[in-house]
Amino acid sequence: MALPDFVLRKLEEVVGADRLSTGASNLTLHAKDESFHEPHLPDVVVWPKSTEEVSRIVRICYEEEIPVTPWGAGTSLEGNPIPVKGGVVVDFQQMNEILSVREDDLQVDVQAGVVFKDLNKKLARYGLFFPPDPGASATIGGMVANNASGVRAIKYGATKDLIQKLTVVLADGTVIQPGTLAFKTSSGLDLCRLFAGSEGILGLVTEITLRLVGIPPEFLSAVASFPTTEAATLTVSQIIRSGLSPAALELMGTAAVRLINKYGEDFDFPASPLVFIEFHGTNKEGLAVDLELVKGLCDDNGATHFEAGIGRQARARLWQARYDLHDFILREHPGLEPIAIDTAVPISKLPDLVAFAENLTSELGVEGYVFGHAGSGNIHMPMMGDPHDKESWAVLEEINRRLVAYAISLGGTATGEHGVGIGKMQFMEAEHGASLDVMRRIKQLFDPKGILNPGKMF
Amino acid sequence: MALPDFVLRKLEEVVGADRLSTGASNLTLHAKDESFHEPHLPDVVVWPKSTEEVSRIVRICYEEEIPVTPWGAGTSLEGNPIPVKGGVVVDFQQMNEILSVREDDLQVDVQAGVVFKDLNKKLARYGLFFPPDPGASATIGGMVANNASGVRAIKYGATKDLIQKLTVVLADGTVIQPGTLAFKTSSGLDLCRLFAGSEGILGLVTEITLRLVGIPPEFLSAVASFPTTEAATLTVSQIIRSGLSPAALELMGTAAVRLINKYGEDFDFPASPLVFIEFHGTNKEGLAVDLELVKGLCDDNGATHFEAGIGRQARARLWQARYDLHDFILREHPGLEPIAIDTAVPISKLPDLVAFAENLTSELGVEGYVFGHAGSGNIHMPMMGDPHDKESWAVLEEINRRLVAYAISLGGTATGEHGVGIGKMQFMEAEHGASLDVMRRIKQLFDPKGILNPGKMF
Repeated sequence: MALPDFVLRKLEEVVGADRLSTGASNLTLHAKDESFHEPHLPDVVVWPKSTEEVSRIVRICYEEEIPVTPWGAGTSLEGNPIPVKGGVVVDFQQMNEILSVREDDLQVDVQAGVVFKDLNKKLARYGLFFPPDPGASATIGGMVANNASGVRAIKYGATKDLIQKLTVVLADGTVIQPGTLAFKTSSGLDLCRLFAGSEGILGLVTEITLRLVGIPPEFLSAVASFPTTEAATLTVSQIIRSGLSPAALELMGTAAVRLINKYGEDFDFPASPLVFIEFHGTNKEGLAVDLELVKGLCDDNGATHFEAGIGRQARARLWQARYDLHDFILREHPGLEPIAIDTAVPISKLPDLVAFAENLTSELGVEGYVFGHAGSGNIHMPMMGDPHDKESWAVLEEINRRLVAYAISLGGTATGEHGVGIGKMQFMEAEHGASLDVMRRIKQLFDPKGILNPGKMF
Repeated sequence: MALPDFVLRKLEEVVGADRLSTGASNLTLHAKDESFHEPHLPDVVVWPKSTEEVSRIVRICYEEEIPVTPWGAGTSLEGNPIPVKGGVVVDFQQMNEILSVREDDLQVDVQAGVVFKDLNKKLARYGLFFPPDPGASATIGGMVANNASGVRAIKYGATKDLIQKLTVVLADGTVIQPGTLAFKTSSGLDLCRLFAGSEGILGLVTEITLRLVGIPPEFLSAVASFPTTEAATLTVSQIIRSGLSPAALELMGTAAVRLINKYGEDFDFPASPLVFIEFHGTNKEGLAVDLELVKGLCDDNGATHFEAGIGRQARARLWQARYDLHDFILREHPGLEPIAIDTAVPISKLPDLVAFAENLTSELGVEGYVFGHAGSGNIHMPMMGDPHDKESWAVLEEINRRLVAYAISLGGTATGEHGVGIGKMQFMEAEHGASLDVMRRIKQLFDPKGILNPGKMF
């Protein structure tokens, strides 16, 4: 159903005609994220500039029982912001102000629409950074909604670990500001971590105070190639177990390494599983000793190639290739769409999970690009296909289902960092059991009319 | 009102006569924690041995609308487990089994009654430890309930940051197991961090899976004395800002240092503010460079004494004195009771907070022992008095109120680690504003009959 005219007029009273659109191109741009999930057009897109405007928009939706879905950069991978029931999309693009850098407190206040790459560019001059890095050009609001983490979570934690304070608009338009600026608190119920990762189903996060980290003065990067995936994943697990504190431990399977050699800038890695290791520290002396330990572990597991002492430029190139991998995969399969895998397991089970994934794809004749944040036990494996070719797409979905089921059976999770969205709803019962009913009741408490990003999570 | 006989018989059916008591001495032991708050006798104490027994106990209380309060070691400092409305105290003392150490996953499963010191003793043989350390002999269940943190939170996080999975008995006896064994997840609502720090008002935590950390191979400890508290707190704030990653940064004010010299084993520190600094690392080489940086910062701020290269034994003695400080204070004032201060502020505000506290006590002629986890912005300042001497006790309560109000005005929190209990309820409105109503509604959702640790938090 289309929105009644009087609702559009009310919304226009809040944001003005310039920041409201029912035009086809704007609706289409907000119908789909970067996943294969079926697009749904919203009825209207609004671009608020302040918490107060968001509050007024949400209150209108509450009164008229209209779905309202927050929108960051649309880079999510499970259909998280697709407005499956139409209604109002609240696009945070124009709430992109960095409000205050409080460098002596290692904190920053931002509006939800700030893009994290822009934030880190600005923070560099203070010698600070916000560590979570989802790869894509996500907004901080989107990262909070999905509890984004990425390559450095192993050392610095996920987004939710670095939230000091939030400003949240609740379903009826009420504004609350849970959290504290102190590093520690035992005061009251932890609402910040309830909203973080809740994908907009409990409220709309409009402002965030983040805890920051000093940019480490010294980096140490190394790459190691292994004869088998098992040797690579075993090494990862042993590095974690050894008491070393790597800032990144990324695995790339053979298929992914081949694409990096093909499309990346000047790489010629052996076509075998690769582990990219990074340490952050205060001084070269300490990192050199850590490097020896790591090299020893790699050698013990039969590493065929070990390259350390990578300089700033080579390191940047390598990270670029790691981030570009998603694009390389798309380029290799023009016209096809990816189905993402995003399971995480306890670290000792990582070799099992990766072996299971590789056996499954090979058995079913599908190319899967294994890579991921191996140090956190979090593995991706995009597979390319055509969602309209029902038969072949069903095979990819079957692989996804069996992999997630296996991860859950190992004590793991259906999603390490992409969130539930539409794609992972089917696994919530298996993963959460009786807890799911409690989650549903919390949703009902926060959103009795079911207007907040409906059709997601459960 | 006393519990009806048939309820006692029902409870006895669950735990047997041996593990239920209405005897005066057992009731008295469960009427009071380590705070000055007024004792209240429960009607009965039960000692369950399993989650299933806890579930059956809670279901009986739910059906009969009887208050039920979980009990760990009774070491809390804000009256958190005092059964102010009587009813049933569930003592977890006999649920003290370490169920499984999964060393390769850096995880351990424990029952809620395990004492954290016993846990760390057992974990040492695996080269692992659970970093939060409240000083007192708390149980893991109590630490989860209060989100305990202590001296090492600055590097390793608070209890809530290290919870993988919980087993929780809800108000009606339902058992849920929120969480995952994977290091990362973006799956569903974060119930673990909602229960953590909830002080038993949402459910009874019976089992916990904790994330562990490898015992660092190298330690480096140093103590520095400063001419003024301001110089000491400024140094702390600069160390945090510098990008170094200390494992502990403890401040002891002059009055506390005097007690350590007096009662501690063989100390002779200058009678002036002291900072205890500790680093954990993989190698001596790196730590030596960090030490130079720290010494430079201390010198810049006019440190009058700097002692590094402290050996294992001296370090253990120093930590012992730090932990014994609470007892030293009690010993210095026989017959009196402490009122604890436990505020935390953003790190740049630490000098202001401590100066405010010292001016306030000196102005009102009260001795306050400033110490605390300065690196986390968390300050304690026990003051001793007689709760029955209304007039002088009112002065201590007034100091507490003004300090907390000041901390909140600086963006801080009423409690950094002790929890709300009874003592901090009065500050919840000032600290949380409109969020408090949301917390209340969550409480109402989880505990519609108001039987779970009633009279606490709000």
